[in-house]
Amino acid sequence: MSSWKDNLRTIDPYVPGEQPQLSDMIKLNTNENPYPPSPKARDVLTNFALDTLRLYPDPDSSLLVNAIAKRYEVGADQVFVGVGSDDVLAIAFMTFFNSKKPILFPDITYSFYDVWATLFNIPFERPALDDDFNLVAADYYKENGGVVIANPNAPTGIVQNESFLRDVIEHNRDVVVIIDEAYVDFCGESALYLTKEYDNVLIVQTFSKSRSMAGMRIGYAMGNPELINAMNDVRFSYNSYPMTRLSVALGVAAIEDEDYFQATKNQIIETREWTKRELKALGFTFGDSKTNFIFAKHSTVDAEVIFDKLREKHIFVRHFSGERIRNYLRISIGTMAEMEKFIDELKKIV
Amino acid sequence: MSSWKDNLRTIDPYVPGEQPQLSDMIKLNTNENPYPPSPKARDVLTNFALDTLRLYPDPDSSLLVNAIAKRYEVGADQVFVGVGSDDVLAIAFMTFFNSKKPILFPDITYSFYDVWATLFNIPFERPALDDDFNLVAADYYKENGGVVIANPNAPTGIVQNESFLRDVIEHNRDVVVIIDEAYVDFCGESALYLTKEYDNVLIVQTFSKSRSMAGMRIGYAMGNPELINAMNDVRFSYNSYPMTRLSVALGVAAIEDEDYFQATKNQIIETREWTKRELKALGFTFGDSKTNFIFAKHSTVDAEVIFDKLREKHIFVRHFSGERIRNYLRISIGTMAEMEKFIDELKKIV
Repeated sequence: MSSWKDNLRTIDPYVPGEQPQLSDMIKLNTNENPYPPSPKARDVLTNFALDTLRLYPDPDSSLLVNAIAKRYEVGADQVFVGVGSDDVLAIAFMTFFNSKKPILFPDITYSFYDVWATLFNIPFERPALDDDFNLVAADYYKENGGVVIANPNAPTGIVQNESFLRDVIEHNRDVVVIIDEAYVDFCGESALYLTKEYDNVLIVQTFSKSRSMAGMRIGYAMGNPELINAMNDVRFSYNSYPMTRLSVALGVAAIEDEDYFQATKNQIIETREWTKRELKALGFTFGDSKTNFIFAKHSTVDAEVIFDKLREKHIFVRHFSGERIRNYLRISIGTMAEMEKFIDELKKIV
Repeated sequence: MSSWKDNLRTIDPYVPGEQPQLSDMIKLNTNENPYPPSPKARDVLTNFALDTLRLYPDPDSSLLVNAIAKRYEVGADQVFVGVGSDDVLAIAFMTFFNSKKPILFPDITYSFYDVWATLFNIPFERPALDDDFNLVAADYYKENGGVVIANPNAPTGIVQNESFLRDVIEHNRDVVVIIDEAYVDFCGESALYLTKEYDNVLIVQTFSKSRSMAGMRIGYAMGNPELINAMNDVRFSYNSYPMTRLSVALGVAAIEDEDYFQATKNQIIETREWTKRELKALGFTFGDSKTNFIFAKHSTVDAEVIFDKLREKHIFVRHFSGERIRNYLRISIGTMAEMEKFIDELKKIV
């Protein structure tokens, strides 16, 4: 007999990272920003016209789109916003990758790409990073249905340079090339300028890292108006009002406070460089991370051992089980005080 | 030469309803609640720990799920939350309707159902409502891939009774039957109890109407844990953190303030019944709406004429262009003062 269960979409559920809730913990496992959002966000909450919550939001999120456009000196028709960069990327996959050819992204990268491809029945191939965790440009010359490059890459933290990106884009003018820049503010080298030269390049960024707003779910994409328009058509066919009124209001406050953004971002970079020196002194090796995390392995002690011992001290870092990376730990950059405590505990372990 | 444009998902964009922004307007066009959210929502904003916005939300939105479960006396594993009921319904379509057989919903109903079916490549058929805008149960006996019933229906406002629902469900035990109850609080007869008898029935509701929170985008589904679990698997494959921290906090405040909910809902019902009497006296006819809107036509004056003249007075109602409904207006229920002004202006028109 047939059952409604026959028509279920069966999918290996994506399991989000651990979100421990301990008051004394040091949480270095999900690449969150250790600093609170801009103090302007408090003014937004204090002055918010509560009555307006009874009304639907502006479907175009115009205030937020305009604030982002102004900050990046692009047209409002070149900006798409969504419920975190996960929503933005998922809609981009749905919009641009309707080919029978496989899309391409590295074997080691953001773990959602293959989940979305599976969800939307998009074929994909995953060329291997080289031994230093760099992408190999020639792997992206073959015929494909699209290319997705996280730059800096996660969880490795490694940046590919401009000539690499140009090389890959020049070989892929017939598909959309997504550059996922979730962590780009921690290296300061966005490829946004490439969208002026190439109509098939989409840049994706987020408020969750450098703007301390993971809790409000704000992501955005920038590219030529035709790309943005196509994404909006799909988005409006899914949900007319994706962004809450408070996401829009708080997002505007965050992006307009450039001084605070620069100060906190620079502090994180400084703390990262200090942490690198300390880790090196303790026998860790790692690539030259340009993000708010360091992906490191120790010369003699297993990652899992370190992970467990830190965990006992309520210090949470991230450990992945993939074959090539199982001896690495991904360590988010916290405040200087948190990283000092972290290094102190590490000294007892290694 | 091939182009990235060849792989675009081409879709007729859904165009959301007009959102005019005039300070003196009476907005009766998108079925929003005329009353502000529960005053408890103000306390949430005042006391909100701003620092927590730097952290990702709880992926399970447990506080909100638990508050809904408590209010409806179901298990937390029987509740799914999403970014408005549009997100909840879209995920339900994606999760449950993976059959080659068409899903069924009426020719006149919520205008997003065919948009989602098209977006997700789900075949569909639309049996016609009868002349009184009632659904015909026998139309839903045929083999199908799923059934979607808005009850009360929109934009008609008409409710199908329990025996109708049981009839349709009994004939469709092998597919998922979605009952979209966006407006159910204005008639008070949820079919939630049917989820205890039938493992294939999913009830969908929203905070956007009866709980005055359209601006925070909160929808939910209730059903047996297997249905909810399957939806969560798909959701977590799309976006791990769909709900903002403030959506969760404000949603909890709204659902816990039962007194305020009852008082504002009853006021809207009272205003609706007053408006019905006034409209009848002016020569309008309409079904017995059990929602926060009335779907009415006038005996002599064209809907479009009335629509335009009201618009000149900054009173916005909704007019649809579909063949069977183009002589109707959908009038959302505002405050008593707004409806008195609306009726006064109508008197000058008809």
